[in-house]
Amino acid sequence: MKPALALVPGEPAGIGPELCVRLAQQPRSDCELLAFGDADTLQAAARALDLPLRLLEASDTANLPGDLRLRPVPNAVSNLFGSTNPGNARAVIDALNAASDACLRGELDGLVTGPVHKAAINAGGIAYTGTTELLAERAGCDVVMMLANDVVRVALATTHLPLRAVADAIDRNTLLRVLRITEQALRNDFGIARPVIAVLGLNPHAGESGHLGREEIEVIEPVLETLREEGLRLVGPLPADTAFLPQKLTGFDAVLAMYHDQGLPVLKYSGFERAVNLTLGLPYPRVAVDHGTALDLAGKGVADPSSLFAAVETCARIAAQRKLAG
Amino acid sequence: MKPALALVPGEPAGIGPELCVRLAQQPRSDCELLAFGDADTLQAAARALDLPLRLLEASDTANLPGDLRLRPVPNAVSNLFGSTNPGNARAVIDALNAASDACLRGELDGLVTGPVHKAAINAGGIAYTGTTELLAERAGCDVVMMLANDVVRVALATTHLPLRAVADAIDRNTLLRVLRITEQALRNDFGIARPVIAVLGLNPHAGESGHLGREEIEVIEPVLETLREEGLRLVGPLPADTAFLPQKLTGFDAVLAMYHDQGLPVLKYSGFERAVNLTLGLPYPRVAVDHGTALDLAGKGVADPSSLFAAVETCARIAAQRKLAG
Repeated sequence: MKPALALVPGEPAGIGPELCVRLAQQPRSDCELLAFGDADTLQAAARALDLPLRLLEASDTANLPGDLRLRPVPNAVSNLFGSTNPGNARAVIDALNAASDACLRGELDGLVTGPVHKAAINAGGIAYTGTTELLAERAGCDVVMMLANDVVRVALATTHLPLRAVADAIDRNTLLRVLRITEQALRNDFGIARPVIAVLGLNPHAGESGHLGREEIEVIEPVLETLREEGLRLVGPLPADTAFLPQKLTGFDAVLAMYHDQGLPVLKYSGFERAVNLTLGLPYPRVAVDHGTALDLAGKGVADPSSLFAAVETCARIAAQRKLAG
Repeated sequence: MKPALALVPGEPAGIGPELCVRLAQQPRSDCELLAFGDADTLQAAARALDLPLRLLEASDTANLPGDLRLRPVPNAVSNLFGSTNPGNARAVIDALNAASDACLRGELDGLVTGPVHKAAINAGGIAYTGTTELLAERAGCDVVMMLANDVVRVALATTHLPLRAVADAIDRNTLLRVLRITEQALRNDFGIARPVIAVLGLNPHAGESGHLGREEIEVIEPVLETLREEGLRLVGPLPADTAFLPQKLTGFDAVLAMYHDQGLPVLKYSGFERAVNLTLGLPYPRVAVDHGTALDLAGKGVADPSSLFAAVETCARIAAQRKLAG
């Protein structure tokens, strides 16, 4: 049986709804999609793009181009593409919660999410730092953020921290947790029997034997030793500037970067359009687009749907892998 | 008249000497080279590679493949490829000093350097943190390190600092100095009349309006305002992860990264072989290879000379540009 995935368009004023309309035009053999969102917004996106859209009940079957099964989560106020409205913050979060709960209950096999506008949610009076964090809290799990494209998978030891807070955030327990979650996901979700993870140093040149910082010696290397004794295949700590050389990358199943701007520039340079954002460690696979709401493009029909398409394909593949294993 | 460039092979036990031998096989129309180093080491490299090498006086003319003009700086002890000897540290530094002094006196028009082995120099009892720093001190200049390939030029606001020291090192005076030197070099050395420099933020998402750090608001933006009033064309502060998207890079003549591992992974990923390391701000152009001594490859004839070739071409082009302007 094909996996059934939840699809949450995200910010209604952004490009998420129209990307979902584009997605609904594609025949799918890898999964069935159930959208969680506002019907009027999706219909408005379809009209703006001059594309067919037939919203179906969850119990229906999508057969034709433009068919999309929907569990309605209505907006509180009428939506205008390009202009966020704090009145709709609640509906955005409700859709995410409903979709994640369906996954947690096992009714659905995975979650694909479009871009959410953090400031719009906060303006609506809802504390929200990111969808990854929201889903982790709802599931009660430790998670790892991984960005992936066809060239490289980058897991992050820390995510959205000021640079000056990074060094202190890299501690033994964090690294142990992050590496275990990442290794398990590579095995279970990507079907890699004995994955190799390249671990970057925190400092330039991975500290150069302590001359450029001691965290490699005092924190990172002891963690790698512990995990190697558990059987994990870990390379590093490696200097970040040369770890991404194309001929090196082919030997790694993933790279663990210590912080955001160490790991993501190469990922985005090497294939932004098809890049996706995965949340590892949840009870279900979750894959998001790797771009923002692009309010300036919304409703114009020019937004590139590649990342959402890649997110659905990736989530379907992982969900199938889990069904196979489970 | 063709520019005359100093060529310093660097660590004798590394791949520097054999790369110079390879270089000497190429006919050159863009510059004349004068090597500063140990004759025996260069001859040993030529024998190891089975290539002709005729070492000439500085007053001679190089005509044939294998001709290389040399100002001898003899090693103290016999050299063995693959194995550094602290006894030769002095000769390595003497060669760099002699070559830089010839440039400072105006006898030569630029300096190209091979890789130096920091630990070997320090083991020889000489305080040395890097060739860039050595040349800056000898010239009494503030300098900027820039790495460049055919895709992107990356200047660094800070270079070899532990990550936890970076945030405090990004201050107003440093940024003003670095940006002025970089802008001037783009005009004078690269012949770009009104260069556009993309300036990265220090924090992820360039601080996200202060939510992920305040250095962009308190330090970087005010510097950019000051320099824009002076006429500089500066974009930013930009989030580092998306600043390197290929379609964005085409609009920038250089990117200023705040620190080593923010700027260099994309540079090395996008074209390591032809990457070079420039020192901006010296009275003469200096270009180095963007790789290390590769002791494990030395004397085997397998090391890729592309970076040294690119360094000579770049230095010759800049020296010619300065002669034209001067």
